Amino acid sequence: MSWIDLQSDLGESFGNYKIGMDEEVIPHVTSANLACGYHAGDPLVMDYSVKLCKRYGVRVGAHPGFPDLMGFGRRKMSISPEEARDYIIYQVGALQAFCHANGVELQHVKCHGMFYNMAAKDHALSRAIAEGIFAVDPDLIMVGLAGSELVKAGEEVGLCVANEVFADRGYQADGTLVPRGQDGAMIKDLQAALPRIIRMVKEHRVTAVTGEEIEVNPQTICVHGDSPTAIAFTKAIREGLEKEGVTVCSMAEKIH
Amino acid sequence: MSWIDLQSDLGESFGNYKIGMDEEVIPHVTSANLACGYHAGDPLVMDYSVKLCKRYGVRVGAHPGFPDLMGFGRRKMSISPEEARDYIIYQVGALQAFCHANGVELQHVKCHGMFYNMAAKDHALSRAIAEGIFAVDPDLIMVGLAGSELVKAGEEVGLCVANEVFADRGYQADGTLVPRGQDGAMIKDLQAALPRIIRMVKEHRVTAVTGEEIEVNPQTICVHGDSPTAIAFTKAIREGLEKEGVTVCSMAEKIH
Amino acid sequence: MSWIDLQSDLGESFGNYKIGMDEEVIPHVTSANLACGYHAGDPLVMDYSVKLCKRYGVRVGAHPGFPDLMGFGRRKMSISPEEARDYIIYQVGALQAFCHANGVELQHVKCHGMFYNMAAKDHALSRAIAEGIFAVDPDLIMVGLAGSELVKAGEEVGLCVANEVFADRGYQADGTLVPRGQDGAMIKDLQAALPRIIRMVKEHRVTAVTGEEIEVNPQTICVHGDSPTAIAFTKAIREGLEKEGVTVCSMAEKIH
Amino acid sequence: MSWIDLQSDLGESFGNYKIGMDEEVIPHVTSANLACGYHAGDPLVMDYSVKLCKRYGVRVGAHPGFPDLMGFGRRKMSISPEEARDYIIYQVGALQAFCHANGVELQHVKCHGMFYNMAAKDHALSRAIAEGIFAVDPDLIMVGLAGSELVKAGEEVGLCVANEVFADRGYQADGTLVPRGQDGAMIKDLQAALPRIIRMVKEHRVTAVTGEEIEVNPQTICVHGDSPTAIAFTKAIREGLEKEGVTVCSMAEKIH
Repeated sequence: MSWIDLQSDLGESFGNYKIGMDEEVIPHVTSANLACGYHAGDPLVMDYSVKLCKRYGVRVGAHPGFPDLMGFGRRKMSISPEEARDYIIYQVGALQAFCHANGVELQHVKCHGMFYNMAAKDHALSRAIAEGIFAVDPDLIMVGLAGSELVKAGEEVGLCVANEVFADRGYQADGTLVPRGQDGAMIKDLQAALPRIIRMVKEHRVTAVTGEEIEVNPQTICVHGDSPTAIAFTKAIREGLEKEGVTVCSMAEKIH
Repeated sequence: MSWIDLQSDLGESFGNYKIGMDEEVIPHVTSANLACGYHAGDPLVMDYSVKLCKRYGVRVGAHPGFPDLMGFGRRKMSISPEEARDYIIYQVGALQAFCHANGVELQHVKCHGMFYNMAAKDHALSRAIAEGIFAVDPDLIMVGLAGSELVKAGEEVGLCVANEVFADRGYQADGTLVPRGQDGAMIKDLQAALPRIIRMVKEHRVTAVTGEEIEVNPQTICVHGDSPTAIAFTKAIREGLEKEGVTVCSMAEKIH
Repeated sequence: MSWIDLQSDLGESFGNYKIGMDEEVIPHVTSANLACGYHAGDPLVMDYSVKLCKRYGVRVGAHPGFPDLMGFGRRKMSISPEEARDYIIYQVGALQAFCHANGVELQHVKCHGMFYNMAAKDHALSRAIAEGIFAVDPDLIMVGLAGSELVKAGEEVGLCVANEVFADRGYQADGTLVPRGQDGAMIKDLQAALPRIIRMVKEHRVTAVTGEEIEVNPQTICVHGDSPTAIAFTKAIREGLEKEGVTVCSMAEKIH
Repeated sequence: MSWIDLQSDLGESFGNYKIGMDEEVIPHVTSANLACGYHAGDPLVMDYSVKLCKRYGVRVGAHPGFPDLMGFGRRKMSISPEEARDYIIYQVGALQAFCHANGVELQHVKCHGMFYNMAAKDHALSRAIAEGIFAVDPDLIMVGLAGSELVKAGEEVGLCVANEVFADRGYQADGTLVPRGQDGAMIKDLQAALPRIIRMVKEHRVTAVTGEEIEVNPQTICVHGDSPTAIAFTKAIREGLEKEGVTVCSMAEKIH
């Protein structure tokens, strides 16, 4: 029987700055990626977010990013593999401590923003990330873009990995995402998005923007919670999947 | 038989900025307090410093500080107890991950600079710090100024505590340090400092700057490694203690 | 004839983080205090905010704060007078450059949050702030709590000063604000606040929370724009003042 | 008659962290590039460094960098032209205020580290930098790698520009530097470096690492002051130039 995890980026507030609608989206997801204080998040936000996840039975993941709060981790930075590894250990370790303090277990690690995008295409960077995760805890699941270097590197070092797909993004013939700004990059219409997602989950196939059929085997879908529209979309995706008999559950329930 | 731990602040470099003579002082101490990225230190420095400690058989402690790199954590900041607790969890968790990655165990936590000084006199702050440490790992030793609120709070929450004394500082009649800048604050002369230290360790007594005899029961002595003079002083202190039959060893060997 | 300046804190967003309703409040004020990148604000926000002020004919002021983005400049920090002076020069200089780049002149400097509050009671700190402002440009107006050390220090160094009052705060018999959290600290009811403000502006008197009549001679009133309620309050204050024949205009029109 | 400016990067300390031998190198240079608080430097360091330049009659330049203290501005960051322009305005404005406070005039702007390197090859980035400099003060001199996009963009927007060469670097046939790590990248031997420099200054020619003769017309040479060896090298370069009849003076004396 088919199953899928639904995860969203939460805990991105910082100090006096609030961002996201964490309380509204959390009832609809099974896992959360929590910022770890580099591109977003701070210790109070991290503690609050772990407690929020615990209350809703949502599994916690770390969402480490570049040390670039001003750019929200969305700008390319040429960090070395050694820096990548150590930034991972630092941020994952910090979040793990909040998990421990709240009596929950850290489930996974998913890099944020441009750290994720750069690593997806760069084996040395992905390898360093995977080694950092493994060094903190070999039982952590590494989440990466389906078919990317992240997933390959995770497998190489012996981590359990989860292939991630996006509910609202178009794919190219080679399995990579259509870059933002190009035709077919975003799929905002639920009527178009839902059948695609169901097909990815149940049939492991998706149609590329150029018409080719490509294979994909997702364990987790990234959904958004930064606007009422995004939350309604997320809710509808979940209901649509469940109506089709797909079990929506955290990745840890099935992967370990 | 008498024993004492000798600890020093290490790992305070940041990025391109090097500070301290870590490689020179480490052969002479038994424990090290490593900065955790807030007032000093960064992930690469933390990883390097943990490896350095491991190589020399020196036990690792966390040295969490205020989020004030520009002020090196030496300026008063009015943080709330909740912020104190969460800043502790964040920083200790991050360092603990580097320990784990390097196959060593974190031994203790000692707050840095003004965080330490403010907490020493503020029970609510000390209590929050102790709770943060306990939440990360109840087996961590909490180091605090001998007789201070830090030590009291650590005992209240059920942590093992280590009373700290300073090799080069004068004491007031109430057991607190003579503030820097006042007469008798600093004891730079080894001939004066060494007998005082030996007496504190073996007889649990020290003479206050105003002549009173005060009781003190130290488990750890803070020494410095930021100059060749400091290192020579540290080396002489250690040799002097050992000559007197005092066992110089990490606090974990005796406290747990 | 009576006149008064209405100013509000704007430009407090940072990177991806948006805060405040700057576009909604700006039509109702005559001066704006713009964050300068320490406690809030970044270069893009500063440039945008100066342009926004220019479009509405609102005069620009610098709003320098403590280097504490995580605490939004609201926590006490024990900075030295030398640090205070140099933090002022740095932040005011940066904003002045954006003014120059946009063809507007910087009008005033008002310290932010806890920097303002600490300086109001600390002559050495206020003096250092005033000297920093004077060093950047002796024609800048220094805004300070009416009757505080800020105002005194500004006058000492030869700056034009503007006494500030708050539209929504109660006063103590000595002219200081009733601390937040105490009875009478906040005056949220427009029917109570408006007559007080008109009286302060036209008669230079206000009734303390304990009943005494105190003298005050304000040149500027601080209003808020962080919620629809605050904006409606601000709009009503302005209309009420104008209805009473008070000229609402920027401080520079009358002070220089 | 030939002339040349000698400039060095100063003011790179931060808080408790000291870097560089500013006091030792400053007698030997005619201009200084001062860090502005992003990749290095802080307000106290900036004020001190401007005073140091004033005392030695050395002209002050701004050395704006990427907002990456942890990486010392040496890592690639994909900032937008708008961000580049505003980061320039912010940092140059801040330093200009310290110049004004100390009664000296800001002479030039030279981007730091990877900001400089990326802009040298990227016209849009260089153009945004030039526009930022012009917006702050059209009389500022823009320093850029000889023949690079920086120099072209500076000329386009109407700034005076200074072509920079490096005393200790090899050149490729196209006039760009031999990348560090390749053969011929560094020229550490004074006996090799000095005649090259004299020839660049007096004959406007240099021999590329592959043997070609290339044209270059430098107004300023970058020298270093981060070690006793670097300072001796700098001193020898200056003496060698003067012995050859080259006037060593600040760029402002000749360019404006």
